[in-house]
Amino acid sequence: MHANNTAPSIHPEPQSLFLRACLGLEVRRTPVWLMRQAGRYLPEYREVRKLAGDFLSLCKNPELAARVTLQPLQRFELDAAILFSDILVIPEAMGMELHFLEGEGPHFPKPLRRMADLDRLVPPDPRNQLGYVLAAIRTIRQQLPAGMPLIGFSGSPWTLATYMIEGGSSKKFSLIKTLLYNDPEFLEALLDRLVVAVTHYLNAQIDHGVQAVQLFDTWGGILGPDEYKRFSLEPMARIIAGLKRHGSDGVRIPIIVFSKGCGGYLETIASSGCDVIGLDWTMALDQARRQLGPRIALQGNLDPAVLYATPERIRLEVRRVLETLGRQNGHIFNLGHGVEPNMDPDKVQTLIQAVHEISGALRA
Amino acid sequence: MHANNTAPSIHPEPQSLFLRACLGLEVRRTPVWLMRQAGRYLPEYREVRKLAGDFLSLCKNPELAARVTLQPLQRFELDAAILFSDILVIPEAMGMELHFLEGEGPHFPKPLRRMADLDRLVPPDPRNQLGYVLAAIRTIRQQLPAGMPLIGFSGSPWTLATYMIEGGSSKKFSLIKTLLYNDPEFLEALLDRLVVAVTHYLNAQIDHGVQAVQLFDTWGGILGPDEYKRFSLEPMARIIAGLKRHGSDGVRIPIIVFSKGCGGYLETIASSGCDVIGLDWTMALDQARRQLGPRIALQGNLDPAVLYATPERIRLEVRRVLETLGRQNGHIFNLGHGVEPNMDPDKVQTLIQAVHEISGALRA
Repeated sequence: MHANNTAPSIHPEPQSLFLRACLGLEVRRTPVWLMRQAGRYLPEYREVRKLAGDFLSLCKNPELAARVTLQPLQRFELDAAILFSDILVIPEAMGMELHFLEGEGPHFPKPLRRMADLDRLVPPDPRNQLGYVLAAIRTIRQQLPAGMPLIGFSGSPWTLATYMIEGGSSKKFSLIKTLLYNDPEFLEALLDRLVVAVTHYLNAQIDHGVQAVQLFDTWGGILGPDEYKRFSLEPMARIIAGLKRHGSDGVRIPIIVFSKGCGGYLETIASSGCDVIGLDWTMALDQARRQLGPRIALQGNLDPAVLYATPERIRLEVRRVLETLGRQNGHIFNLGHGVEPNMDPDKVQTLIQAVHEISGALRA
Repeated sequence: MHANNTAPSIHPEPQSLFLRACLGLEVRRTPVWLMRQAGRYLPEYREVRKLAGDFLSLCKNPELAARVTLQPLQRFELDAAILFSDILVIPEAMGMELHFLEGEGPHFPKPLRRMADLDRLVPPDPRNQLGYVLAAIRTIRQQLPAGMPLIGFSGSPWTLATYMIEGGSSKKFSLIKTLLYNDPEFLEALLDRLVVAVTHYLNAQIDHGVQAVQLFDTWGGILGPDEYKRFSLEPMARIIAGLKRHGSDGVRIPIIVFSKGCGGYLETIASSGCDVIGLDWTMALDQARRQLGPRIALQGNLDPAVLYATPERIRLEVRRVLETLGRQNGHIFNLGHGVEPNMDPDKVQTLIQAVHEISGALRA
């Protein structure tokens, strides 16, 4: 589809199943990767994490971050690696003190609440304050087989802003919502800075060797339609407009937007300029395809809780997801949210094998 | 009411704006009530709460529960009262020990995890274990002006089951989701018992004088489409099929279903037999109306966080909601979720006045 719009001779078709599916091209089976495929559910991750000390130190150690990025690919037949990092490295690089409290999640002791607080932020130079991420990408790229794509990522400006304003995770988001109504100039000024920071950061990731990029908009779904458009989608669209869209090999770099809980806003998301929309499990893939047509690829959307089920049931649920799109192109299998820390790695194995077998048979 | 002698039809039309809107009848302005309109944001509530001691003691004291039910109607020009109670009185009446921990929410120290645990549950006789609720309804009905409707309510079986299985509030719902996949017989047996308990409970509320009923399905939105249909919607539909649908005055008793985060499942919800669908703020009312047509009334759907804004902005946002349906019938103004405990009562006043003025002008 995308290849039809541009000159195919200038932009060669990728070989990778994952990249082909992102671009709507023919594949022999559905590619699969999992959000948070590198992480606490893997015993080998917990070993490396012990070596690193706390979570942020692991993110900041390029050698160890590279090692945990590669771990799930040594265990499972995945079709892409995703950089091991955290969305909150950006606010940290902008000068905000950040702690990860064991069992309580991220904490910014000095959150942003008014225009003057923005003076504390520095525009990060990715090669400087975020050099450890780029070093990790370089190491991963060296160790990864040439044909295996590496996905880079960032939090969306809106989602980053929720943490920077609330000071951490939130149930009600009353602080950022109060500001949204009472001081939208401040919120937009913060989002503007994040648009610039994320654009530079993702372009640096692309320069260092990622072949695709995902924007994680974990908290887009707390907004109504108009507010989602203005405060979550528009900043993402501006980032997408500023990204390099082809790698040094001339292959297009697909952009994935994952706004959790935003199944009602698919047409808005599609207008962002992204190539792929990530879906959680609350909307069936065929319903999304009917709305959007074949111009946008879809990623998802198994409920991660299915991994608590028996192997037989996991296979059944994988089949259900795959059969909703049948032989249609433009689908990347994934969960609708990250792998839970208490998940059994054997269940993940079952899931990945099921995607290979069932989607291969569907297309045979 | 006074339609008894001259009833032009078997089911007379109600006078109340709220009931008329629930039934899709012509109104001179849009009626308004607010979820959690009686509660902690009101200083007079906090006074009564102090008298009662803990939260559950307040729910169990008919005289005090009636008093807090009526408080918001003394302050604001609301079009309906809603019984002050908690959805978890049902599991408590079934024999489950329940505590409300200050600042941490509800806690069941002995949650249900397997079929044998169901033996601990008793089928509650509403006139016995829940007699305090019925006594409160009787008191409220005596003190409420005759034309002012009283809304009864219950949690949905699915939402009640999440608390009974997880033991309290949950972020991930991994226990109930594990059971959903691995022991659906247990989950369905629990839901069956809740269907019976809720049906009897709501019919008893109707017998004691409520004129409308709302099912609160706070956690329907954590389920995918098929699981929502099976585990959340079907039990609600069975309850609705078992409810008395006309009061002693012959007026129809509307049923409202509020499944939070289920804007994608509206057609499924409409199939439940309800009269009204409650919407959170993530779906525009006109989009819902386009999907459903005029056969179902809509309730909602202002983001409660708008109450953090200035009075001018609140009026603007109220206008936005009202204008999406214009002069169409079948709309009850409400928030998309409950009033927050830290809300300024003056802002609630602003909101209610704005609904009166703007909707009156729209229909003039």
